[in-house]
Amino acid sequence: MDATTFHTIAVKEFSRGLKNLKLILDKFQTYAETKKFEPSNVLNGRLAPDQFSFTRQIQIMCDIAKFNAARLTAKEAPVHEDKEQTIDDLRGRIDKTIAYLQTLSVKDFEGASTRKIKMPRIEGKAMQGDNYFAQFGIPNFYFHFTMAYAILRNNGLDIGKKDYLGELTLENI
Amino acid sequence: MDATTFHTIAVKEFSRGLKNLKLILDKFQTYAETKKFEPSNVLNGRLAPDQFSFTRQIQIMCDIAKFNAARLTAKEAPVHEDKEQTIDDLRGRIDKTIAYLQTLSVKDFEGASTRKIKMPRIEGKAMQGDNYFAQFGIPNFYFHFTMAYAILRNNGLDIGKKDYLGELTLENI
Repeated sequence: MDATTFHTIAVKEFSRGLKNLKLILDKFQTYAETKKFEPSNVLNGRLAPDQFSFTRQIQIMCDIAKFNAARLTAKEAPVHEDKEQTIDDLRGRIDKTIAYLQTLSVKDFEGASTRKIKMPRIEGKAMQGDNYFAQFGIPNFYFHFTMAYAILRNNGLDIGKKDYLGELTLENI
Repeated sequence: MDATTFHTIAVKEFSRGLKNLKLILDKFQTYAETKKFEPSNVLNGRLAPDQFSFTRQIQIMCDIAKFNAARLTAKEAPVHEDKEQTIDDLRGRIDKTIAYLQTLSVKDFEGASTRKIKMPRIEGKAMQGDNYFAQFGIPNFYFHFTMAYAILRNNGLDIGKKDYLGELTLENI
């Protein structure tokens, strides 16, 4: 996998996903204001009692984007504490994550494909960069994005696939 | 994006995802037998009344994998009718999809990056192959996989991220 591909997905596409999530948060805020309910009812919501809450899904999604990029470029990831309580806090977390991704250039991803990535939670084990990205980074990022989306759908928010995918780069036929 | 990258994600990783889903279906079948409930209660289940059912999520996930590969390689996709009613039917649909993906080689994806892909539901519009894959194919595939997973979690099935990610290609540090 070449540096441009890593950059396209890990920086451009993940940033786009995070921006789409922010637009979904806007819709959620309007929904909460219209229906007059406490946003925290949903921010603390989950689909199963032993699942992470909506807020935690977003924190993890941001962390996956951040650590994926930092590990593949062999850089130190900035520290983002998990202190978000409100919709605005979540927007801030997303913005910080996007801002970090934007600091990375195509050149930073050179050699990422064969870089050995230590697995933080699997002691003594590592993954090769291209495997790490294809098997772990990409599926994980979209997992937590979709799970956050699913919790909102389950709570009645009127969103659809278009909100998840965002604006596509279309051309005329 | 080179042919190897397309093949790695669109064939190898999507096949791995579909195989992981089959293992999750096995767990679901055991769960239904142990708890003595009709699997169809969950196969027809959804997280919101205007959302696709569990069965439909899997059909769409299979179709995305199939059409994504067919369009990027400029081949005719096989027809798979949406007639699945049981867990076994869904296994069959997944198997047919994996079998189709396995017919495609790295060479088949040559030129995929700049191929113009007609968007079936957006009249008069197309996407360039690499954009189609990064903005539409990949996020869509993992969306429906996660949504199927989410419906099972919401119905009490004891699965976790490991079931979704499957076995990772680990190396010693």
